[in-house]
Amino acid sequence: MTRYTAPVQDMQFLLHDVLNVTGSDIPGYADLDAGFTSAVLEEAGKLASQVLEPLNAVGDREGCVLENGVVRTPRGFDAAFRQLKEGGWPALDCDPEYGGQGLPYLMGTAVGEMFVSANMAFNMYQGLTHGAYSAIHVHGTAAQKATYLPKMVSCDWTGTMNLTEPHCGTDLGLMRTKAEPQADGSYKITGQKIFISAGEHDLAENIIHLVLAKAPGGGEGTKGVSLFIVPKFLVNADGSLGARNALSVGKIEEKMGIHGNATCVMNYDGATGYLLGELHKGMRAMFTMMNEARIGVGLQGYAVAEAAYQNALDYAKDRLQGRAVTGAQNPTGPADPLIVHPDIRRNLMDQKSFVEGARALTFWGASLIDASHRKGDAAAEGLVSLLTPVIKGFQTDKGFEMAVAAQQVYGGHGYIEEWGMSQFARDARIAMIYEGANGIQALDLVARKLAADGGKHIMGFFEMVKTFVKDTEGDERMKGFTDPLKQASKDMQAAGMYFMQNGMKNPNNALAGSYDFMHLMGHVCLGLMWARMAKAAYAALDQGGGDTDFLQAKIATGRYYMARHLPAVGMHLARIQTGAETVMALDAAAF
Amino acid sequence: MTRYTAPVQDMQFLLHDVLNVTGSDIPGYADLDAGFTSAVLEEAGKLASQVLEPLNAVGDREGCVLENGVVRTPRGFDAAFRQLKEGGWPALDCDPEYGGQGLPYLMGTAVGEMFVSANMAFNMYQGLTHGAYSAIHVHGTAAQKATYLPKMVSCDWTGTMNLTEPHCGTDLGLMRTKAEPQADGSYKITGQKIFISAGEHDLAENIIHLVLAKAPGGGEGTKGVSLFIVPKFLVNADGSLGARNALSVGKIEEKMGIHGNATCVMNYDGATGYLLGELHKGMRAMFTMMNEARIGVGLQGYAVAEAAYQNALDYAKDRLQGRAVTGAQNPTGPADPLIVHPDIRRNLMDQKSFVEGARALTFWGASLIDASHRKGDAAAEGLVSLLTPVIKGFQTDKGFEMAVAAQQVYGGHGYIEEWGMSQFARDARIAMIYEGANGIQALDLVARKLAADGGKHIMGFFEMVKTFVKDTEGDERMKGFTDPLKQASKDMQAAGMYFMQNGMKNPNNALAGSYDFMHLMGHVCLGLMWARMAKAAYAALDQGGGDTDFLQAKIATGRYYMARHLPAVGMHLARIQTGAETVMALDAAAF
Repeated sequence: MTRYTAPVQDMQFLLHDVLNVTGSDIPGYADLDAGFTSAVLEEAGKLASQVLEPLNAVGDREGCVLENGVVRTPRGFDAAFRQLKEGGWPALDCDPEYGGQGLPYLMGTAVGEMFVSANMAFNMYQGLTHGAYSAIHVHGTAAQKATYLPKMVSCDWTGTMNLTEPHCGTDLGLMRTKAEPQADGSYKITGQKIFISAGEHDLAENIIHLVLAKAPGGGEGTKGVSLFIVPKFLVNADGSLGARNALSVGKIEEKMGIHGNATCVMNYDGATGYLLGELHKGMRAMFTMMNEARIGVGLQGYAVAEAAYQNALDYAKDRLQGRAVTGAQNPTGPADPLIVHPDIRRNLMDQKSFVEGARALTFWGASLIDASHRKGDAAAEGLVSLLTPVIKGFQTDKGFEMAVAAQQVYGGHGYIEEWGMSQFARDARIAMIYEGANGIQALDLVARKLAADGGKHIMGFFEMVKTFVKDTEGDERMKGFTDPLKQASKDMQAAGMYFMQNGMKNPNNALAGSYDFMHLMGHVCLGLMWARMAKAAYAALDQGGGDTDFLQAKIATGRYYMARHLPAVGMHLARIQTGAETVMALDAAAF
Repeated sequence: MTRYTAPVQDMQFLLHDVLNVTGSDIPGYADLDAGFTSAVLEEAGKLASQVLEPLNAVGDREGCVLENGVVRTPRGFDAAFRQLKEGGWPALDCDPEYGGQGLPYLMGTAVGEMFVSANMAFNMYQGLTHGAYSAIHVHGTAAQKATYLPKMVSCDWTGTMNLTEPHCGTDLGLMRTKAEPQADGSYKITGQKIFISAGEHDLAENIIHLVLAKAPGGGEGTKGVSLFIVPKFLVNADGSLGARNALSVGKIEEKMGIHGNATCVMNYDGATGYLLGELHKGMRAMFTMMNEARIGVGLQGYAVAEAAYQNALDYAKDRLQGRAVTGAQNPTGPADPLIVHPDIRRNLMDQKSFVEGARALTFWGASLIDASHRKGDAAAEGLVSLLTPVIKGFQTDKGFEMAVAAQQVYGGHGYIEEWGMSQFARDARIAMIYEGANGIQALDLVARKLAADGGKHIMGFFEMVKTFVKDTEGDERMKGFTDPLKQASKDMQAAGMYFMQNGMKNPNNALAGSYDFMHLMGHVCLGLMWARMAKAAYAALDQGGGDTDFLQAKIATGRYYMARHLPAVGMHLARIQTGAETVMALDAAAF
């Protein structure tokens, strides 16, 4: 009952009007002319809306089934996965040395958004493979890369990440999975991992598990942890598949959503594994992938909200109910469409202005990753590392909130599974949890990222906002953007100042405000994005020849964000400035 | 995997320390001494935690099944329903003339909260019966009352409300179900109704449907609508069951939650119905029940959040993960419990301070209904009518938000159905939708209730806050409550002023801020409740002899609410004061 249309025009606006990719000095960006990116995005959009989207409800309804150790994915997934591979989509931003197309991560992000909007659970099979590909690409030996990467680039083999155990998720120092060194240089991996997305399925010839485990001699806590490549089928010297490895799926979980993806309990019973990267430095190896993986989850937050929004918008235009208080808008019909009602519009504008702002922030983050990887830009790397917990935590919280808001537009029908809106809310919910629950993102932001490199990156961020505001001050049309942005940035500085002054006395004063700070900064980031987009839209209007309706809607949507979302900044600051006292007042026993 | 413990102490505190029931002049309240209410609440709590709660997950997993026109409820529901009836619980606050126990609505509310917390879907069978009972009790003829009420008071027969049709929910003027008058004074009812909770099931001998339909001669829109009693089995003159009526269940819906309750499509094919109340005044008859029904849904909002909170709290105390940043709290264990972490506490305190505040507001609302019904207090009736959309809309939004927050405490386990936290979130979601979606509550509040009776009730509310603050000014300990309450009440007045001044020019300026106003007022109400509770707690501490730990925790929790929830008031005011302009700026086609 749902549909999806890829937002190609909005993406083109971001790539060309806002980020000005062809004018960038990031290697590879000059080739991204509008004709080329449009062709790629249109093609990806077709696959998303025609092939992946129709399977979204199927995946939710049928889920994955475990029988005799084999997981069956929902009907149609197999054929769709073949189409995805044949189109070369998984290879889009992979290294040409291993069969990739070598496009920037930014393009992979744009295409990824479409696939997630259309079918989040389905896209995880390739998304996790991309994460494992990156880990091997950065940390693997030449032989490991040659063995695994070509097959993973094509998604003939898929990948997984194995971190969590029943008794430890965030606190990986408690890990029990063991790695015993063997005479041939390999390891025997033994232990149980849980919540392994795409841990077992029928879409690929082989599954390459990346497993964190403790090898002897590493010491206590996370220091003893190493990362291992543990393939489902061992790979022979000639690249053919060999023996089945000693690992199996214990069960698949019944979850709130993303039913189309198999979330597995994985049992490793002396399975053969190969060290990836340095011994006892597995956490570090995982963390180099973290920004990318977390931005990918932050993308899920708004991508699902985008799909939910599109359907809520259709419903609001179609459903006739009540009359506009200012006079009938559909006088010949039995009632007016929902969209005439101010509160329905408030809801839709909340969604629209969030989704478009989050897309801009995510694309910007992706371009910073390209700058970091492709031209070694350390400032870009520092900045994206600062933005990552915001993109992950803020965008997934808001994305879920907006999917719930979209569901609300449907009234009672929103609660009925048949209409598809419940699935968006249920699917979006996981993004707040996995890849580091959002409380951990907030902790990472406040306890690590703010102070990283002597606070250089956060200072750089404030400087960037200041410069933008200064450069724009002449343009009266921009006052509705720059004035609230300036105020919000000032409030954010006040929050940072509060942490510095009071966190010294008691670190809880900072940690008790961490979640609010993550949201506060999220609004400042989206405020900055909207100011940039408005500036680009005015520039395009001044130049003439563009799609005037689109550009004016862009500006109006931005004005909504500044007027209606940014006031949350003051609330978060007020909460932060109350410190830890009321948060920590009760003894645990007094709860 | 979940548990529930009835919050008897907190309820006793509300009844006796805050509402001072035995000192009230509301008929029946003098009998509610602490020993009696404690006995009732303890007994209800046992049924809730021992019988209803264990069936909550069963109901969610099994759902209801429709086979050959018969609906089978989940395993165990039938036996539990018998126990509920045998305990006389459905009769608690019903009229003794028809077999009820005649206790105040307030006591029914307290007991109802427990049953909802324990098993929301199960409790709907009796909850809807109570609504139908009230409608017949107020609008029925003596003969109708004698025929239906005794069996409904005992829940031998259950009841339903039939309003919605496929093409109309909020806008009931579009209704198509027809009522054709018959020679014997009855009507033939023909049409389709959807979203009928408990429309068909195996828990009762008979089901008494109350159906809105259009009888000839009533004119267009809602003016032509009348209310009818349409029993599943016709009732013979001697009270025995007669022929099966011409109505049937078309299907049961697959929903996001409340799987244990059968949500039915009901088909009426010339079914025999009897006019209830006046012809063509069915909407009015429905609306007299509305406050009660909506408060009942507002109660669901926080009651489910209470259950979710209890489990999240257990998990936060049990789960060992990470170390307190201020030093290990569980040095002999492998890690500290989650509850040591400031952000986990922020989350738990958000939940706790909301739930306890909402309970106070709901109990207060229930006492106003008693004052209105039992002593004809018009001011109380006006006030509760003003508070109703807030109790329904604000509390269900926040209740869902808090159930989601509780789920978040569990990390990945929160997303796995087996742990039960997903169910709380999925169940709580419906309360934002049914009995008037929350956008409609906001509309009702701003477009009707604020101006009702010349604004008398909202003025009375402000006066009440002012008087409370004035009466408390001498007590320095209360400053942390009265200062923020005063500011919040001022902000609420500013919002009302904005509506008055700008809504004249364009009503959209008020409607675009209606949702924010509902939340703003919700926080002011809970702020007032917390100030009252703090005052009562200080009084009890001063008097001595009470449970000091409980009373001090109460005050600390209230201080959290004032410090950390009330700052939302300023945000809502700022959003309201931006008016309709950015909300209505886009043409529908430009979205």
